[in-house]
Amino acid sequence: MELVIGTKRWSTWSMRPWLAIRRAGLPFSETLVALRQEENRTREAILPHSPSGLVPALKDGDVTVWDSLAICEYLAERAPQLWPADPGARALARSAAAEMHSGFQALRQECPMALDEPPRRRELSEAAQANVRRIVELWRDMLGRFGGPFLAGDWSIADAFYTPVATRFRTYQVDLRDLGDSDGAAGAYADRLLQTPEYLAWERAALAER
Amino acid sequence: MELVIGTKRWSTWSMRPWLAIRRAGLPFSETLVALRQEENRTREAILPHSPSGLVPALKDGDVTVWDSLAICEYLAERAPQLWPADPGARALARSAAAEMHSGFQALRQECPMALDEPPRRRELSEAAQANVRRIVELWRDMLGRFGGPFLAGDWSIADAFYTPVATRFRTYQVDLRDLGDSDGAAGAYADRLLQTPEYLAWERAALAER
Repeated sequence: MELVIGTKRWSTWSMRPWLAIRRAGLPFSETLVALRQEENRTREAILPHSPSGLVPALKDGDVTVWDSLAICEYLAERAPQLWPADPGARALARSAAAEMHSGFQALRQECPMALDEPPRRRELSEAAQANVRRIVELWRDMLGRFGGPFLAGDWSIADAFYTPVATRFRTYQVDLRDLGDSDGAAGAYADRLLQTPEYLAWERAALAER
Repeated sequence: MELVIGTKRWSTWSMRPWLAIRRAGLPFSETLVALRQEENRTREAILPHSPSGLVPALKDGDVTVWDSLAICEYLAERAPQLWPADPGARALARSAAAEMHSGFQALRQECPMALDEPPRRRELSEAAQANVRRIVELWRDMLGRFGGPFLAGDWSIADAFYTPVATRFRTYQVDLRDLGDSDGAAGAYADRLLQTPEYLAWERAALAER
């Protein structure tokens, strides 16, 4: 399998299936496309790999899977441990991942992932603060329900989807305690996401890119 | 199972799992929450059902699945025919559904679903036109690859995700031939989506709501 991804310090969409494929231990090769090139060059560089003109894409024989969540589902068919074994827990983990997939626009826009930038506090709009409150609530609910250490117990695709968010909270010094994390459980979870061997490998590669 | 949905003439997110659960023939009850109420009343009406404050949500015993795509995956675990049987076809169908789940913001914003409004032509921004071109390309690619009548052959969750788009194209009289549908294959597919018994049942109920 070949995973086509974008610049590691910026591409949150690429990070998610990359963490999952590494966690699953499935063999894969990696093709990197530089994002933010002038004019249409990024899109032109991606199109031979992915029909949507967006990364990531996974190529496996004559099949190209072109969306990050669909790639994760494809991987989970080979590595079922990427989702919780219990159907109810799996449904909640999928809800968490899919909510991230479609939502939190304000946070994503105001706090782009930038793994190479030093932490600095950023003021958030009301909309972005509401996004953070919802994320904190979701994390706390699931950690409480399943007892941690990850959202649905063991690490799953849901955690892959929230790892980029944890980097944003760190880079922009978002104080979760002000936004619903009364006892620090959500913050501790964010720290755990940034200590997995898979994330640390991604971060090392991201910082070596430039 | 209880499916909590929003006002049928507007709620594209609700329509998708509703079409899937009907197609699967799974028994369910329906709880309707009126959207676009004053102030926070819609959100307050949804919150007892769904932790995200958004519809749809599926309640099954002590499990609440709170995202439209996650609900569809939950249904597909009981009714596997909701996805293609072939793993490659399934991966493409999931890519199509997930691309809709996360994308096409301009089109969604400029052309809200309004099943009770008469068709009238609307000028689209460049961004929305680019969305339509991509949708037309995606539909044509998949119809060509699998031979129709639906995106991956038989009707699947991917078709549920694009049915609201077909209503937008009709309501706002979007001319697909100007946007990449040279021989009308995408337009014919949009018409087919609006002729399934499941969609027609939804539409009847939507028009009876007011």
